[in-house]
Amino acid sequence: MTGFFNVSDLHAVTALVGRFPVTEAEEVPLGDALGRTLAGEVASDVDIPGFDRATMDGYAVKGADTFGASDGSPAWLRLAGTVAMGDEPAFALKQGEAAAISTGGMLPDGADAVVMVEHTDQVDGATIEVYRSVAPGHHVITRGEDFEQGRPILAAGTRIGAAEAGLLAAAGRATVAVRKKPRVGIVSTGDEVVSVDTTPTRGEIRDINTHTLSAMVTEAGGEPRALGIAGDGEGDLEPLLNEALASCDMVLISGGSSVGMRDRTLAAMEGADESEVLVHGIAISPGKPTILARIAGKPVWGLPGHVASAMVVFEVVVRPFLLAASGSAEKARPFVSARLTRNIASAQGRTDFVRTRLVPDGEGYRAEPLPGKSGLIHTMVHADGLVRIERDTEGLYRDSRVTVHLLP
Amino acid sequence: MTGFFNVSDLHAVTALVGRFPVTEAEEVPLGDALGRTLAGEVASDVDIPGFDRATMDGYAVKGADTFGASDGSPAWLRLAGTVAMGDEPAFALKQGEAAAISTGGMLPDGADAVVMVEHTDQVDGATIEVYRSVAPGHHVITRGEDFEQGRPILAAGTRIGAAEAGLLAAAGRATVAVRKKPRVGIVSTGDEVVSVDTTPTRGEIRDINTHTLSAMVTEAGGEPRALGIAGDGEGDLEPLLNEALASCDMVLISGGSSVGMRDRTLAAMEGADESEVLVHGIAISPGKPTILARIAGKPVWGLPGHVASAMVVFEVVVRPFLLAASGSAEKARPFVSARLTRNIASAQGRTDFVRTRLVPDGEGYRAEPLPGKSGLIHTMVHADGLVRIERDTEGLYRDSRVTVHLLP
Repeated sequence: MTGFFNVSDLHAVTALVGRFPVTEAEEVPLGDALGRTLAGEVASDVDIPGFDRATMDGYAVKGADTFGASDGSPAWLRLAGTVAMGDEPAFALKQGEAAAISTGGMLPDGADAVVMVEHTDQVDGATIEVYRSVAPGHHVITRGEDFEQGRPILAAGTRIGAAEAGLLAAAGRATVAVRKKPRVGIVSTGDEVVSVDTTPTRGEIRDINTHTLSAMVTEAGGEPRALGIAGDGEGDLEPLLNEALASCDMVLISGGSSVGMRDRTLAAMEGADESEVLVHGIAISPGKPTILARIAGKPVWGLPGHVASAMVVFEVVVRPFLLAASGSAEKARPFVSARLTRNIASAQGRTDFVRTRLVPDGEGYRAEPLPGKSGLIHTMVHADGLVRIERDTEGLYRDSRVTVHLLP
Repeated sequence: MTGFFNVSDLHAVTALVGRFPVTEAEEVPLGDALGRTLAGEVASDVDIPGFDRATMDGYAVKGADTFGASDGSPAWLRLAGTVAMGDEPAFALKQGEAAAISTGGMLPDGADAVVMVEHTDQVDGATIEVYRSVAPGHHVITRGEDFEQGRPILAAGTRIGAAEAGLLAAAGRATVAVRKKPRVGIVSTGDEVVSVDTTPTRGEIRDINTHTLSAMVTEAGGEPRALGIAGDGEGDLEPLLNEALASCDMVLISGGSSVGMRDRTLAAMEGADESEVLVHGIAISPGKPTILARIAGKPVWGLPGHVASAMVVFEVVVRPFLLAASGSAEKARPFVSARLTRNIASAQGRTDFVRTRLVPDGEGYRAEPLPGKSGLIHTMVHADGLVRIERDTEGLYRDSRVTVHLLP
């Protein structure tokens, strides 16, 4: 079935994200899980820590035994023993007793606090003096204080960063169930496009989009698969599209900035089995001539050929679909608020994304819009983020405060 | 040789970065270069683009031939031919002539602008009417406008992101000379520490630091090598340290938060051949008991055992050394300015790093300090960044504006 749409609002496009499936789960070693997305909720198999743990070197005590202790009037405690690291103490603390303990050691039963070694003196082999009062719980991490056994510690959809990897280690997850990386087929189009290892003759240009888009797919947690360059001839694109559909979870076809090529891309999409064109044009700049079709249940994108346009469309439109495909509940990119260094013009009726450099300026940043045609790659190298200008805004004045969404 | 230092200022530690070498260069395929650091400056082998290129569908013209054209008084131009994509036009444009051209096509000699197809009508097979005046250069990317042949386009030390990958593709770099990833050996210490695949008995705790530090090394562009857990016994650490020194460019030894273990770690470092202890304690919190030795020319770090402390020390102290080892000229992390949700106390004489959550709040963020003992992992999961409190500051008041350095 084929549907035709007028130019869509950005939010209407983003709302289509639920029309596409999430990848399957797979079990991977914890060491390979960085950047991956948790397939399910994770609970800890143990209390973390599993015992009351000293956070200082000193003596495990009953806090009450030290109340009122001072330099002038120290508390005298009997040494009940020494805690060996990694072992459960074989003794319990009775009133008036203390046990030598190192950071990380397990408090003996009966102890509820640690007094720092600096605040004690050993009188003889059996007795210490304590010069400070410690409250119960002081210099101790109590059993289950970090996490309790069985309590969910990470939600499904969490992206695994360093802290999450630590948490999973603490919870005993030597392997982790994560979503498979969405495989993304990437096709460039155009008779003028040649591969990176070719020296272009006059009229030709090297394929840039395959490389920028592959990198952005990787950054977003996908697995790019570069399928090559399709010419402008009738039927040139279909074999690569079919190959991509057979092996990938999502397809990106870039190029086709000319009306003829765009029609060719659209025709190839419409000609595929189980195809429905959901979006044909988005009210954004750059990136208006973007196409989204659902083919055999998979998202197939027609992206602008201009390199900066393709990158912006990937960032603001495609990336949320890729994150959703891996089940990610990732938060939005961080943003900074900054003052514009000059006016930006904008047309009403579309959402503009302006490539912007951030220049540190005391406590904050100045936002310097980067002019440049969307067919040029070099401005993207200098861009730190994008300023979004809503469709009901005509433009922004110099010195106004703008929100800059950071690029990776 | 052994040197002893008192607690060092953070900036004095960072200044030691030049004492360590940069890794060798290696040539990798462009597709594998994401996140790597360029070993040398890169220039383009061609002009980008290599010809004057149309950015719109329409007609290549001499701008001067359209001057004064309007709906009421169109310019009439003779059709000299059609530009085939990817080919050099076989004809040149004479005065009063136009050539049909698609986006990305090469302007024929003599043409200097493109008039959009929407602003023309074809009168017959040989003639068009033009309803708009176009200035020379309009709707054209001129030869070399993105980059000129031979001009440096990326500096040594640049981290390769998506835009840089595109630039390298345009410049014909199918392979790229990058710095080898610094190999980082990671050792945890402590009789109480057991591996993730073990169920800890009472008194034991699973090794978290190996996993958090491995992830942070990977994120910083290094290659982690987990070497295992050394016990507290005399001579337990030395074999792992030697193995790490033999196979890695940097070594991280975590744990040893107890005075006894710290002394054991220091002794192992001092006992190695060609060893010089450069730092023994840093005036930061958390992270004071950090050690840095130079052993056989390599940086060997003794990090705190407390998991959050080890992560903060990695971020603010170790990471710059790792970036430097890969020759990276990376800019500082992005930061946001935010208002504190509550007071933070701080001791003078040390630089504090406070784990902080960012809560979006209209145009900006509120910065919510995350309390929590540094032996707990869970606060790190919620931290979006670190607030740095300089050593001459006693603390910060609620509602004051702070700079939050974003964590990845």
